[in-house]
Amino acid sequence: MLKKPNLNAARPERQRVRELAHAVSGGSFPELALGIGDDAALLRIPAGHEIVVTTDFSLEGVHFRRDWHSAQSAGHRCLARGLSDLAAMGAQPVAAFLSLALPRKLAGAWADDFFAGLLALARQYNVPLAGGDLTSSPTDVFADIVLIGSVPRDRALLRSSARPGDLLYVTGQLGGAAAELAAISRKRKPASGARKISAGPHPHLFPQPCIAAGLALAEPLTRIACIDISDGLAIDLSRLCESSNVIAEIDAASLPIARGATRQQAMSGGEDYELLFTAPPRTKIPAQLGGVPIARIGRIAACKEGQPQLTLISARGKRTPLQPLGWQSFT
Amino acid sequence: MLKKPNLNAARPERQRVRELAHAVSGGSFPELALGIGDDAALLRIPAGHEIVVTTDFSLEGVHFRRDWHSAQSAGHRCLARGLSDLAAMGAQPVAAFLSLALPRKLAGAWADDFFAGLLALARQYNVPLAGGDLTSSPTDVFADIVLIGSVPRDRALLRSSARPGDLLYVTGQLGGAAAELAAISRKRKPASGARKISAGPHPHLFPQPCIAAGLALAEPLTRIACIDISDGLAIDLSRLCESSNVIAEIDAASLPIARGATRQQAMSGGEDYELLFTAPPRTKIPAQLGGVPIARIGRIAACKEGQPQLTLISARGKRTPLQPLGWQSFT
Repeated sequence: MLKKPNLNAARPERQRVRELAHAVSGGSFPELALGIGDDAALLRIPAGHEIVVTTDFSLEGVHFRRDWHSAQSAGHRCLARGLSDLAAMGAQPVAAFLSLALPRKLAGAWADDFFAGLLALARQYNVPLAGGDLTSSPTDVFADIVLIGSVPRDRALLRSSARPGDLLYVTGQLGGAAAELAAISRKRKPASGARKISAGPHPHLFPQPCIAAGLALAEPLTRIACIDISDGLAIDLSRLCESSNVIAEIDAASLPIARGATRQQAMSGGEDYELLFTAPPRTKIPAQLGGVPIARIGRIAACKEGQPQLTLISARGKRTPLQPLGWQSFT
Repeated sequence: MLKKPNLNAARPERQRVRELAHAVSGGSFPELALGIGDDAALLRIPAGHEIVVTTDFSLEGVHFRRDWHSAQSAGHRCLARGLSDLAAMGAQPVAAFLSLALPRKLAGAWADDFFAGLLALARQYNVPLAGGDLTSSPTDVFADIVLIGSVPRDRALLRSSARPGDLLYVTGQLGGAAAELAAISRKRKPASGARKISAGPHPHLFPQPCIAAGLALAEPLTRIACIDISDGLAIDLSRLCESSNVIAEIDAASLPIARGATRQQAMSGGEDYELLFTAPPRTKIPAQLGGVPIARIGRIAACKEGQPQLTLISARGKRTPLQPLGWQSFT
């Protein structure tokens, strides 16, 4: 029902967002000319740079479950998805915008923890929360994160830059996120606050976007194609091949499979938020980029009639066509 | 439940967004270096310009009702909210990004009409749909629109620029949106497609953002404060006063009340998406800006102990304190 106009209910929420945003403004944000509090935010990008824009939903029941993910994990993962897209473009993060709709019963402690998780990661990458929208939702949590980044003109890492003969690389380790998710789903108990879960890496609950590696890849004047592994190595490689009109071979023995993960999880588990990239064979790729180990896992070839888009090659040289499998939502 | 990985279900949706985006690319978008199809979009802003970013939810049950608003109206209003924020900053629209979650049963005709409404308005303002996210929602439609604009550096129209002595202006007419909404709620029948509703202006169902007026206001080197009237004249004027640390008087007789609207609707009905702005008294404000009539409705004064933030002055000079009332969601 439409109510009669009365004192605007959104006011405390606006005030709250302002306070929360100030919580992350401990850093210095020279590119943020105007943050929360006007009709829009104002950003300044260095001359000769392009603006990189990405938006990603984080929906309860689709991207997270409140009985599996703590609010801190949900907030962290929400921002990590957007940061990972920037990393895949080789972009420097400039600002984040969060639109959040949540049931009134979650507006207290749960929302505080969600923002705590999001802002802790924002602080780590010195990204201000520069605006957004906050409203109530009838049932589930709906979050939409917008990340704005910058990259020197014509230096963004595109999916479409791979050429036959290029070598194929991946950052970090694969399958860890899927393995952790499988363990969580087996336990069937809520993953409570970050402080209560075991120490060490949590590739599913608290993934780390590869911002430094992306920046390092965009730096040299070489032709790099790049995509982040958000849905799984196989499907994201398939997307890169599609954009570049090429095919790819993966050497099974060279896959950096995370401890405790299966090859299947490494190939198609998804949500690892690592970078998958190609470079010409003459380009020297260091063993580490931005503190993350790099593995060479295969090569790019020209499309040929009757050849599958993706081929897995075993240590003994056996070739198996690979289906572009990937992560599926929880619904 | 988490399903086993299988062929990624998001693929047809990605293809669909690509097709829909191409539908609006009849225009020429020199600032769009890379649109849908990579990890992020790339935009180029003219040198010496700032980037303007705004995000706005359009949620079923909060911002629209499917039994009152056609899908075309919902799509149009979704984009209009964001464009109006750009107008209020004096910005030129550069690109739009849409994150849309909707129940599977609406993925066909309803979604087509939603996009048709949104893209028709996008075409009108030559704004490309440059990216976004598309997913399924368990129950309601959740849309989040992101608008990126550009404005010459230090020329954005801020809420905080009003000074005592400034005169107060408004574009267009007020209360029309609230009056149309009241009529729709009385009829209680679905407002079907745009072609089926009566000809003429529909300030609620199909509001027109004041982009041209905003650009015209940002052009001269004068001090203009500006806000869009999204929630209602009184509450939005209150926000402008708060940002500028001033108070305001409105001359009741000079309010441009839309035909069929009450003064109450004009004062606090909301969703008119007109611009409310201030200018120094020496600044000559033309009778029209960007094709929209301008009315002078009052003045700005210095804060004084015991003085209300907003005062309504009748034709006979009677002064009444004004509450910052405004639009409320449908929930």
